Amino acid sequence: MANLRGGIDLGGTKIQTAIVDAGGEVLGESRRPTPTDGGPAGVAEQMAEALREAAEQAKVEPADLEGVGVGSPGDADEKTGAVSSAKNLPDWEGSFPLASTLKDALGTAVRVGNDVQVATEAEFHLGAGREFQSLIGVFWGTGVGGGLVLDGKPWLGRGAAGEIGHMVVKRGGAKCPCGRKGCMEAYAGRSAMEAEARRLHEEGTKTDLFKLMEKHEKPRLTSGIWERALDQGDHLAEDLVNRAIEALGTGIASAVNLIDPEAIIIGGGLGVRFGDRYMEPLTREMSKHLFLDEKPPAVKVASLGDLGGAIGASLLFAR
Amino acid sequence: MANLRGGIDLGGTKIQTAIVDAGGEVLGESRRPTPTDGGPAGVAEQMAEALREAAEQAKVEPADLEGVGVGSPGDADEKTGAVSSAKNLPDWEGSFPLASTLKDALGTAVRVGNDVQVATEAEFHLGAGREFQSLIGVFWGTGVGGGLVLDGKPWLGRGAAGEIGHMVVKRGGAKCPCGRKGCMEAYAGRSAMEAEARRLHEEGTKTDLFKLMEKHEKPRLTSGIWERALDQGDHLAEDLVNRAIEALGTGIASAVNLIDPEAIIIGGGLGVRFGDRYMEPLTREMSKHLFLDEKPPAVKVASLGDLGGAIGASLLFAR
Repeated sequence: MANLRGGIDLGGTKIQTAIVDAGGEVLGESRRPTPTDGGPAGVAEQMAEALREAAEQAKVEPADLEGVGVGSPGDADEKTGAVSSAKNLPDWEGSFPLASTLKDALGTAVRVGNDVQVATEAEFHLGAGREFQSLIGVFWGTGVGGGLVLDGKPWLGRGAAGEIGHMVVKRGGAKCPCGRKGCMEAYAGRSAMEAEARRLHEEGTKTDLFKLMEKHEKPRLTSGIWERALDQGDHLAEDLVNRAIEALGTGIASAVNLIDPEAIIIGGGLGVRFGDRYMEPLTREMSKHLFLDEKPPAVKVASLGDLGGAIGASLLFAR
Repeated sequence: MANLRGGIDLGGTKIQTAIVDAGGEVLGESRRPTPTDGGPAGVAEQMAEALREAAEQAKVEPADLEGVGVGSPGDADEKTGAVSSAKNLPDWEGSFPLASTLKDALGTAVRVGNDVQVATEAEFHLGAGREFQSLIGVFWGTGVGGGLVLDGKPWLGRGAAGEIGHMVVKRGGAKCPCGRKGCMEAYAGRSAMEAEARRLHEEGTKTDLFKLMEKHEKPRLTSGIWERALDQGDHLAEDLVNRAIEALGTGIASAVNLIDPEAIIIGGGLGVRFGDRYMEPLTREMSKHLFLDEKPPAVKVASLGDLGGAIGASLLFAR
């Protein structure tokens, strides 16, 4: 079983685990909600439990895995295995020794990495980026995260590379959830889009977005709610998605002008849902700002779906 | 003499050559104006002549050099040795086999590379970037060019990486000499700054910039003219340099958020002249948009001066 690896994608709402073989095949998987109490230790406990379930499905003991990788939000330190400032997780402002805690619970080696970076690497090795040697992953969801693979290898910079969502698209522009102004995420992140929709709705702009949210008993404007609103021709939803696409196209073009990669892979909740639907306006917006517009990179939608993060995490043992 | 290399920095106004030993020492150098007639062949002839002069100073025959590198504007194809679309050179819209032409003229191997990229590599190996493993060179002059060194190696992308001057800092913003809108260069390039100064002056804004230009018999607002105007407290000059610094800080921050390099090296005519003077406002503007503002990269002014380009070109034979 030395070739089997575990992967855990730790998200703000759910924990997704997978057991993956050396060929990238998923032999077992399990998901559960991210607990909202118990702090980092409580989260780690549920992560271990979900990993055990996936292992049982795959008929392997966790201790017999080559190792378990974790894709984590916040500042995941690959060297120490600690995760800090994971602000969308409960009581996780400080630093928590996630790798060593899970190692004790599971009896196998554990590595942590950035959630978006490992998802990018999964697309590079097994998904929509297989045919390329350099690519930028753009994960369009609650926020906008990025990951880089250059010359076939992950590029982490000093540990914090890939923050494409915080590239500036408009100096002095909209306030971003990060506190700064004019970031791509201030226009394109689901969370910023929802805040803007709410503000405009309260000011009197007509929209069915919030009615749909209530009807489908969602706590927020999920990508599914945005899609329903678009399908029924909701003007506010259309305007805000178009605005997001403009910001994405502009920021991606800036990144391409700097790095000149072979491909852009669009993932994340909104990215996977809208990537194909908005491919034409997205590439058009990008082209407007490409320095070499006659030689654009390939733009593809991520192909591994919800399991991409967990598969990518398992690849921390294949680097 | 196998360890001696030649370098030629091909610019829009001058050709600078150098003979460089394996330790980076310059043993001979020569410069002459870039001819305005005769097209690419005429330019190549002057390049060969200037290289021969430098070789004579260094007491070496061109044919005995390990090779001659050329840092070129436009699209310099490292594989074929051709240079295309060098729009700031006379009649150089198309493609010209620069490497093979110079090889025939000089009797030694010739390689071409991007001028800004090789200048960045010179700073990395021998200049202000010596202590770092990853850096972005930002060459602030007529335009704003960039070069990347990642993990100790040049990063060229598909051949066109480093166009930091065409990262967008303001969607829908000022018109850039490249024809697009809101690029960093639209605010920070010397050429765009001069056009804006002229427009505002013609609209009635007071400034001594153009008087100084005439007094010193310059054909354009050189970096020296900008400096004189600043020194005498010219308000328009101050406003436009501040605007340039804002755009530079914003665009550099975007690049840092994406790549997370150890250092930024500021070079180019304006960069070398104003780098120290404006270091504080530049790093302040950058900090405003850094995602990890508690961990900024080092920012240093290029240290090789006018010879950096030619030295960097010679390093094309040291890669």
